[in-house]
Amino acid sequence: MTQRIYLDHAATRFPKPAVVLDAMRSYSQTEEAAAGRGAYRRSQEASQFIWRLRREIAEWIDAESEHEISLHSGGTAALNAAILGYLQPGDHVVTTAAEHNSVLRPLHHLAGQGTIQWTVVPVDASGRVEPTELLSAVRSDTRMVAVLHAGNVNGIVQPIREIGTRLREEHRGDHKPAFLCDAAQTFGHLPLSVRQCHIDLLAAPGHKGGCGPLGTGFLYASLNVHAHLRPTLFGGTGNNSESLDMPLEYPIALEAGNMNVPALVGWLAGLQDRRSETPAAEHLEASSARLRGLAQRLYRELHEIPGIRLIGQPEHVQLPVASLCIDGIAAGELAMILDTEFGIEVRSGLHCAALIHAALQSPDDGTLRISCGEETSDEELRRLVDALREITAGD
Amino acid sequence: MTQRIYLDHAATRFPKPAVVLDAMRSYSQTEEAAAGRGAYRRSQEASQFIWRLRREIAEWIDAESEHEISLHSGGTAALNAAILGYLQPGDHVVTTAAEHNSVLRPLHHLAGQGTIQWTVVPVDASGRVEPTELLSAVRSDTRMVAVLHAGNVNGIVQPIREIGTRLREEHRGDHKPAFLCDAAQTFGHLPLSVRQCHIDLLAAPGHKGGCGPLGTGFLYASLNVHAHLRPTLFGGTGNNSESLDMPLEYPIALEAGNMNVPALVGWLAGLQDRRSETPAAEHLEASSARLRGLAQRLYRELHEIPGIRLIGQPEHVQLPVASLCIDGIAAGELAMILDTEFGIEVRSGLHCAALIHAALQSPDDGTLRISCGEETSDEELRRLVDALREITAGD
Repeated sequence: MTQRIYLDHAATRFPKPAVVLDAMRSYSQTEEAAAGRGAYRRSQEASQFIWRLRREIAEWIDAESEHEISLHSGGTAALNAAILGYLQPGDHVVTTAAEHNSVLRPLHHLAGQGTIQWTVVPVDASGRVEPTELLSAVRSDTRMVAVLHAGNVNGIVQPIREIGTRLREEHRGDHKPAFLCDAAQTFGHLPLSVRQCHIDLLAAPGHKGGCGPLGTGFLYASLNVHAHLRPTLFGGTGNNSESLDMPLEYPIALEAGNMNVPALVGWLAGLQDRRSETPAAEHLEASSARLRGLAQRLYRELHEIPGIRLIGQPEHVQLPVASLCIDGIAAGELAMILDTEFGIEVRSGLHCAALIHAALQSPDDGTLRISCGEETSDEELRRLVDALREITAGD
Repeated sequence: MTQRIYLDHAATRFPKPAVVLDAMRSYSQTEEAAAGRGAYRRSQEASQFIWRLRREIAEWIDAESEHEISLHSGGTAALNAAILGYLQPGDHVVTTAAEHNSVLRPLHHLAGQGTIQWTVVPVDASGRVEPTELLSAVRSDTRMVAVLHAGNVNGIVQPIREIGTRLREEHRGDHKPAFLCDAAQTFGHLPLSVRQCHIDLLAAPGHKGGCGPLGTGFLYASLNVHAHLRPTLFGGTGNNSESLDMPLEYPIALEAGNMNVPALVGWLAGLQDRRSETPAAEHLEASSARLRGLAQRLYRELHEIPGIRLIGQPEHVQLPVASLCIDGIAAGELAMILDTEFGIEVRSGLHCAALIHAALQSPDDGTLRISCGEETSDEELRRLVDALREITAGD
């Protein structure tokens, strides 16, 4: 049988790098121990692995210190830790219609119980938010501005640096709202300096661009917001066990329960292997150039297929993620045909983004989404294009 | 070098069964996909694996249905989902001084912000709670009674069945408090029927007796409490994406974010392999008999070493978990000596149980805890006993 073609990398990278799986397996077989919970060497080594991973992640996002990185079971858990842990009764939040449900749903929950008010700023037909419009929604009681780095529906990249810089310029002093960035689609793919972009909180899973396994994620919290972040998960931390309160210090304060050390060891191996001896920033420049090339080719090829409507094509394509529809074929049916008849795995639907589709003018049943990985080959793209041509021709 | 001896199984089982690691590796390499998020076959198979795991877990705890099992990143996450998701302002909770911080800390948090009131029922010198004393603390506004199945400090097993049965008899009708059981130390080790014990909520990690990898855990919620369980984590669920609300149906309502499918596949393989063709209940009877034998030997041998003080020896030892101290040697120092001079890995401290140590009369710096696994050998126990004899003799 022909090799199957996986084009659902925006959901999770597949396959995970062999170095990640090898590191997990080898650690689990010979070295595994609970971190922060034992007096013996291997348990202490588990803790050291974790601190090494924090340092590694800090380098990838240009954070000042590994003490700004807490580890979570995924991007959703990290975003919830940031949103539910930072906001307080009476706060106002500004966000965009392009956000993923992992940002919209916790905000909607807080608003629904009367804890916060929130403003959802509309996006244009490509899903991009206009910085001036976003910033004009900031009020004197706005305590958080939440903008995703890139969208998982069409790969739109938001003007994070401009937003962060202007937010800081316009709101100096104690009243600056915290700037939260959801980097689920870009961590490990595109450069993003939390310092240059004046980001206070940034969350991402490990298993997409981050080259880690599923079950991993992190939250970056800049030193200036630590005092405002309260735990949302409570339990054993391996220290201060005599106290009924969670420890006060970030990142430990946000990390109740046993850490998934084998997964974290695998993630560390994946990140370290990826950039080899080069600084993370250099690796990310190369990676973003490669992805941009792939994205341009993907959009160009799709554009040339008669009968395909591209949904929300960005003005500057940067990520090889595209949504489309074909008149007369529901997105779910199209995905099933691609899978069963062509061995091509893509996703259909609304992609856990509740509010972007009105602006993108998606069909009611959503879109067919193609999302490539860094290693998607020319041959794989060609087979996708051929399949879509065959389907539209036969329609 | 002599083989190291791992006696910290109460923290996490080591090593994980090869069948678990093999299943994870093989799935990650060839089949991995995001569950519930794709129209293609592999993504649907990921969802099927998850439902098969729910069914398997349901059998191990004698639950009625796989629809009563939600999957979480660990036991702590599952307990938080139960406690923070079930309790409402004005509720009263009864619990015991023997609980782990993963129960005490979320309750303390809710009490601290004025949401609930709680009563901590004392335990005897072995850490056991007296059912009559516990039940007499139940008030008309008590909405939850939380008791752990077995303690991680000394392996004390609580009278769960008596408590559950009497709670049900004494509080028939709508006002029965939910009975929450933390089975972190017993799931996969000892039989526990949620139906026979009238348990409404039960949480456990997968990586201890459950034979799964780290990063796994589950919550059992009986059908009658589903309507009262609210999500505490918000995000993408792969369905109802157009809605800003989490889906209403348990278990999906409690499972925001990408599931860690490879880990869940490994866990399923571990549970299925463990019992082979026998029913889970039979396997658990055999496993508990083996552990009781090991526990009796462990306590007997430790008892005979002059200079050792056993902390809170249960009247009926059932789990091979024991805490001890040696006058003049701090527990942390003792653990370090065992590690560096004898290659024996054990844990020292308070073991994330804030309130039990007063009853057990533990030293201020905590205890040295020995916790065996089902496969701990006679030879390993002998080497532990020899090492402790050498240390106490030289003291």
